[in-house]
Amino acid sequence: MPDAATLAALEKAVDANWDKQVAWLQDLVRFPSLRGKEGPCQDWIARAFAQRGWSVDRYTLDQVAMDHLPGFSPVMDTDYAQAVQVVATVRAPEQKGRSLILQGHVDVVPEGPADMWTHPPYDPVIKDGWMNGRGAHDMKQGVSAMVFAMDALRSAGLAPAADVYVQTVTEEECTGNGALSTLARGYRADACLIPEPTANTITRSHVGVMWFRLRVRGVPVHVAHAQTGTNAILAAYGLIQAVQKLTAEINQRARAHPWFKDIADPVKFNPGVIRGGDWGSSTPAWCEVDCRIGLLPGTPLEQARQEVLDAVAGAARGDSFMANNPPEVIWNGFQADGYTLDPGSEAEQVLAGAHQAVFGTKMQARLGTGVNDTRFYGLYYGITGLCYGPAGEGAHAFDERAHLPSLKRTTLAIAAFIADWCGTRPA
Amino acid sequence: MPDAATLAALEKAVDANWDKQVAWLQDLVRFPSLRGKEGPCQDWIARAFAQRGWSVDRYTLDQVAMDHLPGFSPVMDTDYAQAVQVVATVRAPEQKGRSLILQGHVDVVPEGPADMWTHPPYDPVIKDGWMNGRGAHDMKQGVSAMVFAMDALRSAGLAPAADVYVQTVTEEECTGNGALSTLARGYRADACLIPEPTANTITRSHVGVMWFRLRVRGVPVHVAHAQTGTNAILAAYGLIQAVQKLTAEINQRARAHPWFKDIADPVKFNPGVIRGGDWGSSTPAWCEVDCRIGLLPGTPLEQARQEVLDAVAGAARGDSFMANNPPEVIWNGFQADGYTLDPGSEAEQVLAGAHQAVFGTKMQARLGTGVNDTRFYGLYYGITGLCYGPAGEGAHAFDERAHLPSLKRTTLAIAAFIADWCGTRPA
Repeated sequence: MPDAATLAALEKAVDANWDKQVAWLQDLVRFPSLRGKEGPCQDWIARAFAQRGWSVDRYTLDQVAMDHLPGFSPVMDTDYAQAVQVVATVRAPEQKGRSLILQGHVDVVPEGPADMWTHPPYDPVIKDGWMNGRGAHDMKQGVSAMVFAMDALRSAGLAPAADVYVQTVTEEECTGNGALSTLARGYRADACLIPEPTANTITRSHVGVMWFRLRVRGVPVHVAHAQTGTNAILAAYGLIQAVQKLTAEINQRARAHPWFKDIADPVKFNPGVIRGGDWGSSTPAWCEVDCRIGLLPGTPLEQARQEVLDAVAGAARGDSFMANNPPEVIWNGFQADGYTLDPGSEAEQVLAGAHQAVFGTKMQARLGTGVNDTRFYGLYYGITGLCYGPAGEGAHAFDERAHLPSLKRTTLAIAAFIADWCGTRPA
Repeated sequence: MPDAATLAALEKAVDANWDKQVAWLQDLVRFPSLRGKEGPCQDWIARAFAQRGWSVDRYTLDQVAMDHLPGFSPVMDTDYAQAVQVVATVRAPEQKGRSLILQGHVDVVPEGPADMWTHPPYDPVIKDGWMNGRGAHDMKQGVSAMVFAMDALRSAGLAPAADVYVQTVTEEECTGNGALSTLARGYRADACLIPEPTANTITRSHVGVMWFRLRVRGVPVHVAHAQTGTNAILAAYGLIQAVQKLTAEINQRARAHPWFKDIADPVKFNPGVIRGGDWGSSTPAWCEVDCRIGLLPGTPLEQARQEVLDAVAGAARGDSFMANNPPEVIWNGFQADGYTLDPGSEAEQVLAGAHQAVFGTKMQARLGTGVNDTRFYGLYYGITGLCYGPAGEGAHAFDERAHLPSLKRTTLAIAAFIADWCGTRPA
């Protein structure tokens, strides 16, 4: 727990910088940093980091060899020459404390039909302490928290007494390859904090996620003779139903899982995108469904994939057309392991102390039914990965919004954590 | 039935022009005259008609006021300024016989995945008497039949003794508004022949067709919290199932229909195009399904539409989300009545005589579970609409192909019909 004087100085600094932080976050939310379009946003951040005097490494994912690494997810339809990553290094002349990675993602998920938003999705309108916007909550407010936590130290006349890497990555929402690229590029530290919007809880364990594309081919005919054709759209629904059934079985097994046994249906299956057919009066020749399914921590990806393959193959065998024209399952995107932050780590204890000092409450743990980037650090590189950040609403939904009072307190908690974990020196 | 000498002269003429007809049809098949892209094909035809000395009226659908007329179908997403229609008038100085409309459509339906074709879809490869190609069968070969039937008369030194209109239209595969536009523009005759590929049968009765779009809106959330969101893709599937159930009920009733009682399931429902969702890990906020459903001749469109609306509303009421966010049904495309060619018309008798003379068999009637353009002439303008044409395979399917020996005989049968119906004069 930080000493009272340091905490007071940091609180004063966060206060002093608050208007600037809110304006910075608004600027950040205005970038429609959808997948493949994060470049301008990352360029702007790289300049903001450089202006702070930090050493900036800006690169694109196509420059990093990483498809041999554990945790890598395959991709289609995406140009990694456009996927800009930013790592700022804040070096301490002497390593008196423990080094730290602060990491946040700037990629956002599609906003859906704009007319279902109260305010436009990239208009960071502030009302009653909430800031609107796709990505405002997940997780641009967290990015602002880690940046302005560092700023708070400096405003308080302090600097970390160990190296800190401030990283903004992409691909968190689809592969995690942005996070992986920083590790492939060699960035290491004694701990990693990712301020995803956890409402000031620590993520104890999260499920893994796999993306896959179901691809069905049918024989189109004039619908007047539809009895001789196979409708690929209806066939695809048969496959969806088979994976729904598998999901129910997995959730049945989850009742014995050490972490997820008390969570209702922790493994979610989502047919998220569908497209098929070319003409109303032709039986559709093709249908593709982009799907997401969870897996429990401890289940090997290979096993989870095999279960999906078996479910799809079983459904296809029961269909007169698909039995001879087997559908494809294409692993395209997340192949993400679940991850458990084992209780008792030094980094968690220090974070819990900072949380307690700022909020006056014990830091609670949460179980996540979605994935986050901490798995890369914890599972594959032995770096404790802490997922802890501010509160808000509507991740991936309409009217997503960040809760500014929570963000302000969280910024202070992270500043206190940095001060405690890394130690401080005069700036 | 034409006299033997005229028939012999016409047969000789069809023979003499045959190579030219096949080459012309190949040129016609090379045009990818998909909806909205028929312009170049129609321009080429207009020039081919003008070269024959015919008077050509070339216009686009946006120039014709017709949305007040019976049989008009509403359209979305289509630019009628691109929808070129061609009407060639072959005037007889004196009306000694009966006037005639020869009409064919040049629009083709999408070819689907090209890799499922043996030959490329717009490559009119000829093998063993069959010509490959999207539209080769439905119905560019019929267009060639009507044009070269007229050419045969001329080659035989004859001309029709009454006005003949040779028309190539678009929109047959989606609305019929091309055919309707010719009537709105004032073209009338004592009969109309449309050489759709009927394998030398006459279409006695055909079902009607309606197109509609099912549009579902859902509330997207992060799939980690999917229990609080509604998946629009799955909701759309519930609506599809409801219309499948309705279709089964309609087909049950069809067992009492005067024409369709012996046809198994004459009313077809086809979800033909689907699209929905934006992201694998967001519950999809929207899904649209473009559908086609038949209706029996005699069923008013209004009643058929109401049944669809009731089925969809019933399914929505049973769904906790859709009950409060009702799905939309958008009538977009075909609102086409069924049509029965009452037996005993003069025009049919003359066509049957020509068929008998050429094929040596009695002309058989067929019942159509798809729609054709004859309905406009017969139902709304009192012009007998004959649908009779050559044989082939694969309408709307892969490896569509025209059967050239059938085309040649059909061209002669149509020439004989023209000669008998219109009478002849020296060219």
